[in-house]
Amino acid sequence: MTKIAIVEGDGIGREVIPEAEKILRFFLPNAEFVKVELGFDQWKKTGSACSKENMTTLKEMDAVLFGAVTTPPDPEYKSVLLEIRHELDLYANIRPVKSESVDLVIVRENTEGLYSGIEEIGEDKSTTLRVITKAGSRRIAEKACSLNIQRNQNTPLVIGHKANVLKSDILFRDTCITVAESQNLPVRSMFIDALCLDVLLHPDRYDVIVTTNMFGDILSDACGYLTGGLGMLPSANIGENHALFEPVHGSAPDIAGRNIANPIAAVRSAAMLLEYLGMKTEAEKIEKAVQQTLSLRIVTPDLGGNASTRDVGENILAKI
Amino acid sequence: MTKIAIVEGDGIGREVIPEAEKILRFFLPNAEFVKVELGFDQWKKTGSACSKENMTTLKEMDAVLFGAVTTPPDPEYKSVLLEIRHELDLYANIRPVKSESVDLVIVRENTEGLYSGIEEIGEDKSTTLRVITKAGSRRIAEKACSLNIQRNQNTPLVIGHKANVLKSDILFRDTCITVAESQNLPVRSMFIDALCLDVLLHPDRYDVIVTTNMFGDILSDACGYLTGGLGMLPSANIGENHALFEPVHGSAPDIAGRNIANPIAAVRSAAMLLEYLGMKTEAEKIEKAVQQTLSLRIVTPDLGGNASTRDVGENILAKI
Ligand SMILES: CC(C)[C@H](C(=O)O)[C@@H](O)C(=O)O
Ligand SMILES: CC(C)[C@H](C(=O)O)[C@@H](O)C(=O)O
Repeated sequence: MTKIAIVEGDGIGREVIPEAEKILRFFLPNAEFVKVELGFDQWKKTGSACSKENMTTLKEMDAVLFGAVTTPPDPEYKSVLLEIRHELDLYANIRPVKSESVDLVIVRENTEGLYSGIEEIGEDKSTTLRVITKAGSRRIAEKACSLNIQRNQNTPLVIGHKANVLKSDILFRDTCITVAESQNLPVRSMFIDALCLDVLLHPDRYDVIVTTNMFGDILSDACGYLTGGLGMLPSANIGENHALFEPVHGSAPDIAGRNIANPIAAVRSAAMLLEYLGMKTEAEKIEKAVQQTLSLRIVTPDLGGNASTRDVGENILAKI
Repeated sequence: MTKIAIVEGDGIGREVIPEAEKILRFFLPNAEFVKVELGFDQWKKTGSACSKENMTTLKEMDAVLFGAVTTPPDPEYKSVLLEIRHELDLYANIRPVKSESVDLVIVRENTEGLYSGIEEIGEDKSTTLRVITKAGSRRIAEKACSLNIQRNQNTPLVIGHKANVLKSDILFRDTCITVAESQNLPVRSMFIDALCLDVLLHPDRYDVIVTTNMFGDILSDACGYLTGGLGMLPSANIGENHALFEPVHGSAPDIAGRNIANPIAAVRSAAMLLEYLGMKTEAEKIEKAVQQTLSLRIVTPDLGGNASTRDVGENILAKI
């Protein structure tokens, strides 16, 4: 039996995930859904944002649907999402950017780079070690190449890096080039700063973009501009044995509790989850229903509408 | 006597800088202009992209007007621009983003962060040390605060950081907050990924943004989107004793030699140079002439026109 963890987390995670969950339950009537409580609220209650049992449960699942988690003001606090990515070795963060006129995917390395966690904190000086490995670069490049082949858009794989400043990025860039060439894929290597601008000016020139962890973090938010904001962007965190699906947006405490958060990113994350389980047709049905709801302008305030989170969710489900 | 170094560098640097230089000469008829040859072409000729004598000359100047330098394929090569920033301790990179509807400034820390140069390069693993110091954070925060006061826009100082992942950024963020509070300035602290998107969606909410080195590098290119591309963005690199002014764009080998590069970023950099020398009225005259040229649509192909680099430069000069 398929086992799915449902993690609402904090803030608007508690509002958008239930809408996505309904759709998952519709397509997976026989799956087991396991609710996992973690995040800031949990940390306030128990002193731990993610317990050992939580982590064990997540590891036993076939997939995780994840909302968002608020960062508490405690400087000792470690981000739960980062802990999970690390523990489950979810090395590939796949972030499709899709709208009427845009269709590209960011493949973000999800385990190393500036997210190494190797830091020395001092009063006058603090450092973080940015770590690039050949093995890490190779596996993310392989993921990006297979996506590029699968999508078959005849657009070169773009490598985003900063090898003109970070000599460590030469390893990343060259490993990506080697992997792509071994599969006869054309590549284009770009500096991340120039890439961030060019993708906004000419999104049609891009299909699959592979980049390191922090650069991918920033690039994907910037690309939110192409789709009308973060309320639209889903993501998949994929490893060898585990997978977690989450909207790119955060817990947005400023708008939480008002039933106005856009659930589309969460719903699309559920679609990515189904595709991961082999249910591509079902995933496409969801995307079609999302498109219809958008055309009818049944949208939340971030997109200029006045529908509630629940309205949008129920409309999408009805269209399915 | 005022001494100005003119560094064209490579590629379109050789085309845009002469236009900016004409304008400087018009306003500074008695200054001494010293041409300094450095960059990739120089490296090919002499094996050194920037000689010791070059560096000494630059240090003797009141200001430097700088074009752009191409990075050669040699992995041992060190960026000349970075060397100069380092040698002249040009710690503040001031990047105004201005158009009809946008008016903000990015204040980028220019000497540390990921640009530390502390790297360990290996075949299977390479690392770069990201260094944040309290002294470095303090002086850039002070610069940003004084700009914020000077511009007097009643918009809080925005601090761009990633303290939810990089504990080292807590030092940067908190130092900026302390400096701003000591001057009674309101601050808003934002995660750099969210900031990159929000500034595109709502540029009117921003006035002065202070951030670390690499984040500033990426953010300023992304903001190029707000002004029609990098051809419009000037910058100042300012230290205690030296100053260098350069367009944000690079040497653009793909369009070099065709007299089609947009000289406005270079011309505006010259205006920043004059302002630095205390000639604010003259700087404003240049900006006005740029605006007039834009309204008349005397613009290069990147802005949809068919004027040449020289056409645009001469038109701006004529309007002055
Ligand atoms: C919340 C934060 C730790 C996370 C990240 O930096 O990866 C988020 O910004 C994201 O993009 O998933
Ligand atoms: C050319 C490169 C070294 C430089 C940088 O990264 O600072 C450039 O991108 C800039 O923004 O001035």
